[in-house]
Amino acid sequence: MTEDQIQIRELVYRWVAAIRARDLDAVVADHTDDIVMFDVPPPYRGVRGLAAYRDTWPTFFDFIATGAFFDVLELDIAAGDRVAYAYALLRCGSPVELTAAPAQRLRLTLGFRKDGDRWQVAHEHHSFPHH
Amino acid sequence: MTEDQIQIRELVYRWVAAIRARDLDAVVADHTDDIVMFDVPPPYRGVRGLAAYRDTWPTFFDFIATGAFFDVLELDIAAGDRVAYAYALLRCGSPVELTAAPAQRLRLTLGFRKDGDRWQVAHEHHSFPHH
Repeated sequence: MTEDQIQIRELVYRWVAAIRARDLDAVVADHTDDIVMFDVPPPYRGVRGLAAYRDTWPTFFDFIATGAFFDVLELDIAAGDRVAYAYALLRCGSPVELTAAPAQRLRLTLGFRKDGDRWQVAHEHHSFPHH
Repeated sequence: MTEDQIQIRELVYRWVAAIRARDLDAVVADHTDDIVMFDVPPPYRGVRGLAAYRDTWPTFFDFIATGAFFDVLELDIAAGDRVAYAYALLRCGSPVELTAAPAQRLRLTLGFRKDGDRWQVAHEHHSFPHH
């Protein structure tokens, strides 16, 4: 792994830990002001801007508080000088959901830009497949 | 736009044209051997490798042949020296589906690596939101 890949991996695991801790300031700490997220729910055109991104999290925190899983199982990172992306598979769901469908995975793709020495998330795409 | 962004935009529009033309060789022409695609349908862990990627297209070509739309409406590209990503919104569906749900969009995120002077797609993530 390169130094950039290590920094990005740490960023991703910090973000996941912040989500589990339901710490909103920490969840948005490494995101750009112009973040565009394609989330599991609508809207179709995505969630645009840091304020709108921030507003999506409390509902998910309520879900986490019920005992839901949000675990990274695989993470691949490609990093250049100023731009990087990563894709991951997560175990995400309530214990009841995951007992019924243990192979279910949340698919996550992240886009990063480097601002000075600091990587930030500028794009997120979260989805479940459609059967 | 930088020269890299222009090259990537051209690649994306070439790929979309190849899909509409149902030209399988052209659809896979700019993809890496280790492409990982999170497609709209399962499998959860994604479609891995160029042969498996190639095998997903004939079913979609049958859908295109019925008169379905596959149009890029928005495309944003972030390109560094060796790594880039892009995200796009597409109008994708049959005329009947899109008459019933005109705002429906396919969300697409692409990851690119540069091999010498040539950009290639190494990751794709396609999804519709869940209501």
